[in-house]
Amino acid sequence: MYKRVGIIGGMGPAATCDLMMKIIEMTEAACDQEHIHVLVDSNVNIPDRTAALLSGGEDPVPEMLASARRLESIGADFLILPCNTAHCFLPRLEGQVSIPFLSMPVETAALLKRKGVKTAAVLATDGTVKSGLYEKALAAEGIKAIYPDEEQQKQVMSLIYDYIKKGITDPAVLPHDMIVTIVGDLKRRGAEALLLACTELPLAFDITGIDDDTCVDPTRVLAAAAIREAGAKLRTDVIL
Amino acid sequence: MYKRVGIIGGMGPAATCDLMMKIIEMTEAACDQEHIHVLVDSNVNIPDRTAALLSGGEDPVPEMLASARRLESIGADFLILPCNTAHCFLPRLEGQVSIPFLSMPVETAALLKRKGVKTAAVLATDGTVKSGLYEKALAAEGIKAIYPDEEQQKQVMSLIYDYIKKGITDPAVLPHDMIVTIVGDLKRRGAEALLLACTELPLAFDITGIDDDTCVDPTRVLAAAAIREAGAKLRTDVIL
Repeated sequence: MYKRVGIIGGMGPAATCDLMMKIIEMTEAACDQEHIHVLVDSNVNIPDRTAALLSGGEDPVPEMLASARRLESIGADFLILPCNTAHCFLPRLEGQVSIPFLSMPVETAALLKRKGVKTAAVLATDGTVKSGLYEKALAAEGIKAIYPDEEQQKQVMSLIYDYIKKGITDPAVLPHDMIVTIVGDLKRRGAEALLLACTELPLAFDITGIDDDTCVDPTRVLAAAAIREAGAKLRTDVIL
Repeated sequence: MYKRVGIIGGMGPAATCDLMMKIIEMTEAACDQEHIHVLVDSNVNIPDRTAALLSGGEDPVPEMLASARRLESIGADFLILPCNTAHCFLPRLEGQVSIPFLSMPVETAALLKRKGVKTAAVLATDGTVKSGLYEKALAAEGIKAIYPDEEQQKQVMSLIYDYIKKGITDPAVLPHDMIVTIVGDLKRRGAEALLLACTELPLAFDITGIDDDTCVDPTRVLAAAAIREAGAKLRTDVIL
């Protein structure tokens, strides 16, 4: 019997489904019963994480904790959060429930270390960037974090908030050349890996066709970690 | 505050995500916090429903009931099942928890009646077909049910069990021509609506590009019913 995964979801709801689908697609399973048991609280009442970090918005921790306790009460063995920015609040959640959390930045940094990466670029929301969330996790593995410059960071935020979060996903409309320029600059500056560290970014990169071996999707890394932690096996054709 | 939806999932896991995505996509919401709160128990330990109905397989009711009770215990206001065949067991679940269920066949039959449909083809697992689940719900609304012939029913089962449930979703590998032939035959026999009455089928039809106005996806109908029951609004551009 595999361990039960608890997902504190709703941040946003679509990213929650995306993580669930990645867990399903990456699990070695020939029938329903060989998949892992996933418990999900898609708690849309969790206040906006970036607003709480940067502009005095409502604290999301009480609602996140309520979800964690609900999932624990129905038998979750460990918890995961399909929202990069939400991980800034993880230190305040750990210890409040008796089950452990897997961390998306920690798992991602561990993967990059195994791949021998020395410098990684972090593409994320202003909240995630300013919190130093990925920088700290990467530093713990001896990996240097670099970021887009100030103007490019504004473009990354625009890509997330003005396009993907508004449902604008037409390849002809998305700012393809802007993304290519940012990616090119980061690689010239030494990035061996590009962390798409906001759940909206893998979608934008996928749609515009800019998704090479250098890109790392932390949601995929978290899905693989959850499968491993549950005790199940990754499909043999999955490459991280 | 909207009501909380509880989803008894894992039958299969991908169909569970599909229902969740449909609820998200069909809800009128401008930010995460305007979506509905969804609680999901993707309980892959629920034994195969078709095997229980047709070949003396293990009874799925105890596990389904365990999921229902877990979801009730963490605040679900009503329950839905993203598995058509599982609805054969609904009479044994109702009354065992204090919250109500929405029924996919009942909601679907009501929609078809509103649309003036007189004859509907049911594409489903052997278990759903032999139980007469849809036939009874349709008959209650004065609608005649027709089915694929014996050979084609075997092909439908193969599409469900040998492809989608095994995670084989490559459009180049799915049996496109077989599906086209079955659909054509059913329309020639008078079907005004094709009920894709196994949650794996809309995935298969979508991937292969065979999804016209005649196709009715009971999962979509259930998503709309859940949004209504929760007290939220359907997006104005959603056509059922």
